[in-house]
Amino acid sequence: MAPRTVDVPALVESARAGSPRAVARLISLVEDAHPALREVMAALAPHSGNAYVVGITGSPGVGKSTSTNAVVRAFRDRAKRVGVLAVDPSSPFSGGALLGDRVRMQDHALDPDVYIRSMASRGHLGGLSWTTPQALRVLDAAGCDVILLETVGVGQSEVEVAGLADTTVVLLAPGMGDGIQAAKAGILEIGDVFVVNKADRDGADATVRDIRHMISLGDRTEPGLWRPPVVKSVAVQGDGIDEVMEALDKHTAWMERTGTLRERRLRRASDEIEAIALAQLRERMGDLRHGSGVEELAAEVVDGRTDPYAAADRIVSALA
Amino acid sequence: MAPRTVDVPALVESARAGSPRAVARLISLVEDAHPALREVMAALAPHSGNAYVVGITGSPGVGKSTSTNAVVRAFRDRAKRVGVLAVDPSSPFSGGALLGDRVRMQDHALDPDVYIRSMASRGHLGGLSWTTPQALRVLDAAGCDVILLETVGVGQSEVEVAGLADTTVVLLAPGMGDGIQAAKAGILEIGDVFVVNKADRDGADATVRDIRHMISLGDRTEPGLWRPPVVKSVAVQGDGIDEVMEALDKHTAWMERTGTLRERRLRRASDEIEAIALAQLRERMGDLRHGSGVEELAAEVVDGRTDPYAAADRIVSALA
Repeated sequence: MAPRTVDVPALVESARAGSPRAVARLISLVEDAHPALREVMAALAPHSGNAYVVGITGSPGVGKSTSTNAVVRAFRDRAKRVGVLAVDPSSPFSGGALLGDRVRMQDHALDPDVYIRSMASRGHLGGLSWTTPQALRVLDAAGCDVILLETVGVGQSEVEVAGLADTTVVLLAPGMGDGIQAAKAGILEIGDVFVVNKADRDGADATVRDIRHMISLGDRTEPGLWRPPVVKSVAVQGDGIDEVMEALDKHTAWMERTGTLRERRLRRASDEIEAIALAQLRERMGDLRHGSGVEELAAEVVDGRTDPYAAADRIVSALA
Repeated sequence: MAPRTVDVPALVESARAGSPRAVARLISLVEDAHPALREVMAALAPHSGNAYVVGITGSPGVGKSTSTNAVVRAFRDRAKRVGVLAVDPSSPFSGGALLGDRVRMQDHALDPDVYIRSMASRGHLGGLSWTTPQALRVLDAAGCDVILLETVGVGQSEVEVAGLADTTVVLLAPGMGDGIQAAKAGILEIGDVFVVNKADRDGADATVRDIRHMISLGDRTEPGLWRPPVVKSVAVQGDGIDEVMEALDKHTAWMERTGTLRERRLRRASDEIEAIALAQLRERMGDLRHGSGVEELAAEVVDGRTDPYAAADRIVSALA
């Protein structure tokens, strides 16, 4: 099946002019690993690097969608264009993933300055690390000032989110032994801001204390390092959202002051370049494999005429 | 820390002369990803390709060690030199992994023609796919006619074992809803021979029927394809081991007749070459990263002066 041809310049222009359809189409190209992606990324590059990316993660039931919703409103009050990218690493479906959750985002459904997209990350080219940064670049180039990257907290994906975001917000809820859970899940290391949501419930203060205590045991209390604040919210009523925004502002200011923002973005770009380079090499290797290269070498290895290292050397030199 | 220098030719010669210490040292070099490994593999190559590799896998409690033990004895009765490689993919420890189980292998501890080794597979260079084929090559070159590759059945590792073995034996025990479990775990696809061990227990015949039924639903019943036999054993008493050996012989004969043996070995060698090539490329990329290459490109991406694909292209050309 030949892929549909895509008028990339026109599509990018429409996206930059604010067309949600054009943005949607570009993100679909990312999800499909469409051949035009290379041209798309080249066209987006000059327009990217402006968006502030906030990762929002937490276990199911802590109120991620409600919180995201409230934070979107707060950024809209500041007249920011906002993108929301909800990534479900466990869903094999794209486009419609997490739509149930998205229903609660309908507050912003008619706002032309809010773009909301659910995305499955299990593409044939790998997980979060491959598609999500490219989708972020689409939203960035399309003029979003802020992008909220929301993922269900399922271990590895949380850590990956942290790698992609400028600021990572970890949401918790009272009870549930969250302090210990967080420590186990490695969440303490990735959170820049901790929010104990549903703080009108019993045990909220205990959870806050737990998290603060855990943070104090880590190495982030050294002078000059960012000490993650722990704030309380009741997102469904909008309570505590001002404090969340204040924490985000402080973290942004700290990152700019210390050079951390650029450092994180450089590391993120390095990861992305490396992932693409490895995927390209793997693809070329596959071509070799289906051609004659690897197969002939395999026969030499099986017959004892060469060893796998020497064979690998020849593959590597044949690749570039 | 400078690695100890290794006299590779002497070590390989000793291993080939039957020194268990030399074999042990070579496998340790594999586990440690020692710099001399490349030289080791080159020295082993001319002597490899003779061993028949039998994978033995199954859930904990089905009697893997006892069955392996009985199969070792049967091969010894045929005057074959036997290697046993027990891989524990979940263990972070090397050398001593699975030693508890190995106690039951003491029958063969004093037999100079049986070499038994436990190995952890979670090395810093990746799992089973990296270290195990190299350890197999050591045992092969050291003159083993047969190598039994035993792994605890934990999903992915079973499938990897099947990729490394000439014949894969899947062990089951009565009850435990093994038929359905096997179907779920993808075990039906990888087993060349199914053994229902502990067949003196209730439900053995039902389990045999279950597995046969499952196999009949698959695509392995087409003419010319291997139809995996299902045999019963009580390994602890040595019952049924003749039937297991007969099944192995039949499978070997079928593989030789159809060219499957060479095909599997070629595919295995291809996989190994590819894994080594990818590891080498990744390493070079790491060098680039810590040098200036990737970092400069990352800055260009962050500043919108280039896109990740163009940057990756430059990395790929710089690699080889």
